Amino acid sequence: MHIAFIGLGNMGAPMARNLLKAGHTLTVFDLNAATVASLCAEGAASADSARKAVAEADFVITMLPAAAHVRTAYLGEDGVLAGVRRGVPLVDSSTIDPATVRELATAAAAQGNALADAPVSGGTGGAQAGTLTFMVGATPALFEQVKPVLANMGRNLVHCGDTGTGQVAKICNNLILGISMIGVSEAMALGVRLGIDASVLAGIVNTSTGRCWSSDTYNPYPGVIETAPSSRGYTGGFGAELMLKDLGLAADAARSVKQPLFLGALAQQLYQAMSQAGDGQLDFSGVIRQYQPRTGA
Amino acid sequence: MHIAFIGLGNMGAPMARNLLKAGHTLTVFDLNAATVASLCAEGAASADSARKAVAEADFVITMLPAAAHVRTAYLGEDGVLAGVRRGVPLVDSSTIDPATVRELATAAAAQGNALADAPVSGGTGGAQAGTLTFMVGATPALFEQVKPVLANMGRNLVHCGDTGTGQVAKICNNLILGISMIGVSEAMALGVRLGIDASVLAGIVNTSTGRCWSSDTYNPYPGVIETAPSSRGYTGGFGAELMLKDLGLAADAARSVKQPLFLGALAQQLYQAMSQAGDGQLDFSGVIRQYQPRTGA
Amino acid sequence: MHIAFIGLGNMGAPMARNLLKAGHTLTVFDLNAATVASLCAEGAASADSARKAVAEADFVITMLPAAAHVRTAYLGEDGVLAGVRRGVPLVDSSTIDPATVRELATAAAAQGNALADAPVSGGTGGAQAGTLTFMVGATPALFEQVKPVLANMGRNLVHCGDTGTGQVAKICNNLILGISMIGVSEAMALGVRLGIDASVLAGIVNTSTGRCWSSDTYNPYPGVIETAPSSRGYTGGFGAELMLKDLGLAADAARSVKQPLFLGALAQQLYQAMSQAGDGQLDFSGVIRQYQPRTGA
Amino acid sequence: MHIAFIGLGNMGAPMARNLLKAGHTLTVFDLNAATVASLCAEGAASADSARKAVAEADFVITMLPAAAHVRTAYLGEDGVLAGVRRGVPLVDSSTIDPATVRELATAAAAQGNALADAPVSGGTGGAQAGTLTFMVGATPALFEQVKPVLANMGRNLVHCGDTGTGQVAKICNNLILGISMIGVSEAMALGVRLGIDASVLAGIVNTSTGRCWSSDTYNPYPGVIETAPSSRGYTGGFGAELMLKDLGLAADAARSVKQPLFLGALAQQLYQAMSQAGDGQLDFSGVIRQYQPRTGA
Repeated sequence: MHIAFIGLGNMGAPMARNLLKAGHTLTVFDLNAATVASLCAEGAASADSARKAVAEADFVITMLPAAAHVRTAYLGEDGVLAGVRRGVPLVDSSTIDPATVRELATAAAAQGNALADAPVSGGTGGAQAGTLTFMVGATPALFEQVKPVLANMGRNLVHCGDTGTGQVAKICNNLILGISMIGVSEAMALGVRLGIDASVLAGIVNTSTGRCWSSDTYNPYPGVIETAPSSRGYTGGFGAELMLKDLGLAADAARSVKQPLFLGALAQQLYQAMSQAGDGQLDFSGVIRQYQPRTGA
Repeated sequence: MHIAFIGLGNMGAPMARNLLKAGHTLTVFDLNAATVASLCAEGAASADSARKAVAEADFVITMLPAAAHVRTAYLGEDGVLAGVRRGVPLVDSSTIDPATVRELATAAAAQGNALADAPVSGGTGGAQAGTLTFMVGATPALFEQVKPVLANMGRNLVHCGDTGTGQVAKICNNLILGISMIGVSEAMALGVRLGIDASVLAGIVNTSTGRCWSSDTYNPYPGVIETAPSSRGYTGGFGAELMLKDLGLAADAARSVKQPLFLGALAQQLYQAMSQAGDGQLDFSGVIRQYQPRTGA
Repeated sequence: MHIAFIGLGNMGAPMARNLLKAGHTLTVFDLNAATVASLCAEGAASADSARKAVAEADFVITMLPAAAHVRTAYLGEDGVLAGVRRGVPLVDSSTIDPATVRELATAAAAQGNALADAPVSGGTGGAQAGTLTFMVGATPALFEQVKPVLANMGRNLVHCGDTGTGQVAKICNNLILGISMIGVSEAMALGVRLGIDASVLAGIVNTSTGRCWSSDTYNPYPGVIETAPSSRGYTGGFGAELMLKDLGLAADAARSVKQPLFLGALAQQLYQAMSQAGDGQLDFSGVIRQYQPRTGA
Repeated sequence: MHIAFIGLGNMGAPMARNLLKAGHTLTVFDLNAATVASLCAEGAASADSARKAVAEADFVITMLPAAAHVRTAYLGEDGVLAGVRRGVPLVDSSTIDPATVRELATAAAAQGNALADAPVSGGTGGAQAGTLTFMVGATPALFEQVKPVLANMGRNLVHCGDTGTGQVAKICNNLILGISMIGVSEAMALGVRLGIDASVLAGIVNTSTGRCWSSDTYNPYPGVIETAPSSRGYTGGFGAELMLKDLGLAADAARSVKQPLFLGALAQQLYQAMSQAGDGQLDFSGVIRQYQPRTGA
């Protein structure tokens, strides 16, 4: 299949590579010449605009940092909609707000193209290994149509509902994640200060009602989980700035339906404080440091 | 073994019954004459003070509502320490602050009695079925000594560390629980308002990084988990007032070590608002109602 | 002087009227034909685009709902910058984010026009009476230049610093206001529940360290201040939705400099809850209702 | 008049001195021998228990750190109620919870003594200068009776209502104070980061709707108010630990009437974080430091 891939960042580039490996014909577009060259060396063709990249494509994927980029990529003068053939399916894998997705889907539908949102989880590791989870918002027919292609890049393809619900699923999951990580941080820091061993406490929580991914798989207290970022100085992992972006999307979405997000908004401020302290590039589980006295433990 | 059991409330009475069934000799004390009579009808003896109840006992268990009661039960003129024989092990299964536990343990040790704190989880259902989890704070030797008796009332006996750490474990677990339940509530309410199906959303969260007991076992959105209180009008379960009590213990413990609890304190206010609205007896997962418009969905 | 006035909403229309009364020649532009007609009946001329409205003007004022409108009004194909003569001073009295102001000022400067931001306080009452406060961000020279015109619409003209600082001042003031109103609400509701008379409590606070505008001038407890919205069912005044808008600007500005806003973010959620309950059009002091039991006292 | 004064701490000692200066006969009691000696050198008599100190007194004043001390001082075996003559008025100037006050008043009334609560504001400076504000909870008759004595120690004597309302007034005022100080801190830190001069911003706020004591008299930004603790490294003033105590009283009182305190609880955590960082002895306005990047401005 001839696929156009727009956006070759930390996530997009390895995803595109997996499409090449699967035997697809690929035309790519990105402003970063070096990455484009690297993909071309591996067999992709390139174009100097999104419009040109999609001209011959049977399938289009976009993977961009934020809503403004996605909007330009689709609606701009040199964008996808200006160049794509009628009937070609469009998949946006960026993490953006559901409202923008729905607006783009309407514009695409008006010229005969169906658009699915398919944000991912799994990080750069999952992108490289081809084990991403795709949360797909699409009609049932479109979901069936895009599945075989996404399967070359990910392992779990989840149909979330109509267009936009892929973003909703991702935002809501990460809202819980951002909150529960701080909940675990408050409890682990408190417990240790009160005299319980960190691993013993985590063991109890993990077999009880406090059980959660933030405790049993990604515990923020150093030494509890050897493979977690907390055991290597909070390097690698999912940066606090990325968590801030996702909590920002949740906040904006909540405002659009007039729902308060009490814990979500406060969690956002705590990651913001982490960012202000210069630790925004560290893994978000480093938020536990705000509960530990500056000197000593 | 001759066991004295002080405190026959919703939890204490069925726990005492399980000791009787296991063949122990039981002397009970409680201010509620009806419950005492009921236990006596099943084979227990009764005494008119804690002091008298423990006089002949080889083992003492207390199960009381709050620290003030526990303090009186042990230190009062007619209390446990005034009547118990040297060397008899003491187990307090109440949920109270670790500082009070440690103070009582010191007083008990001064007269030759070792005290373990062993708060439970599992609710009245677990108390009746004898499947409670005991989180035990005790020296290793004392833990071995109390284990066989606790095994008559519970299934999981976890050694948390020295005296007081049982309470620490329970408080920290419930702090995470109280927070994650609200995190899930914010996300479920938001997702549904944004157009995703509640069960689909829960399914995605439960296989992703937002996974937690509050979502996969006790989801607050009605209909997602048929056996959860949310699917029967938030009746039964773990009342918001009980969660408020445990978050209050966490707040006090945190104040004692000068640690802030940002999300914990805010969670407390949200359960407080639930209580103010007259819903304090409902299951704590009813907190989700604060995120749902009063009229309609 | 020949003044172009863009944006004739609840605030803009009475402001424009005061310029007419002061004897200026006025050309107005707004999408609402009825308001334009009403101004024309009072002596203004009208144009069918911002570009045409400013063509002959010696002075330009814009008063619009949000940043997107202001951006279009200045940078659009038919916008102010496309039509205005070199050297004509531009004043934007909308309440928007400082970053957009600075971006527009740079674009204006590039073609020889100085732009001042001059958001107002005083509400529609102040706009009608010509008693607004203008918080002006401008070079000292520009401030002197715009003062005489603004003086026809307002009583206090405050020079806040360079371009953008007018917005900063307004956002920061309203951040304090939004927070202190809730602080007073929590305290007044609590005090009354604990048995003190509301007016007595307010009297003590107002001569003590809790003293603030939200207590001594605009107290949210009904009956304490006869002229406050709280004494007339929270009608009139400054709507919760407007407070939400301003707290949103504060949140965005804080995110841009990576500063957490703990109380500000939580205050935002409380006004959001008020909005979700359907009370977003009520005065923001109605936030106190969230602290009062729904039924009875 | 013969007055018994119990509690000679940082506040009590200078208050007692002012009674001596006013010509009263004084019998004092405190566990600190040095302070007792110092008062005796100035003309007071001393007793070795509260009971003995009040035996001959026509008037009793207590000034103690916390509810537990007050309870012991009145109800203990060697306490005030065990020694005081029928009909002698009792005044407790400690800052404690209203519930304890009411309980003590009931016990006192049972033996023919009326008790007023009269917590103060004005700090150690006001205690020395005799310019304290007394917030008095008492029947009108008792208020008239205690006024002349309190007038020797303070300038403002405010009748707040029946017994307990003095504490209510103080707690509610300080709740507003603790919140508004953080509101001002968030806004001042944000404004300066966004480019406005701190004094200009404070000037605007102080003549606008954000106006409050925390901004116009005690501004937390260094240099804005020369006499404020912020301009001398946050030394002196009202320590964060004292603010924590008062917010703790507010939280407990709110819990007793099931009212949430959203901002109050969060403010408490922010002062708690200040305390954890080792700054609990600094003036509470130092809370602004949590909004300023650790390095640089």
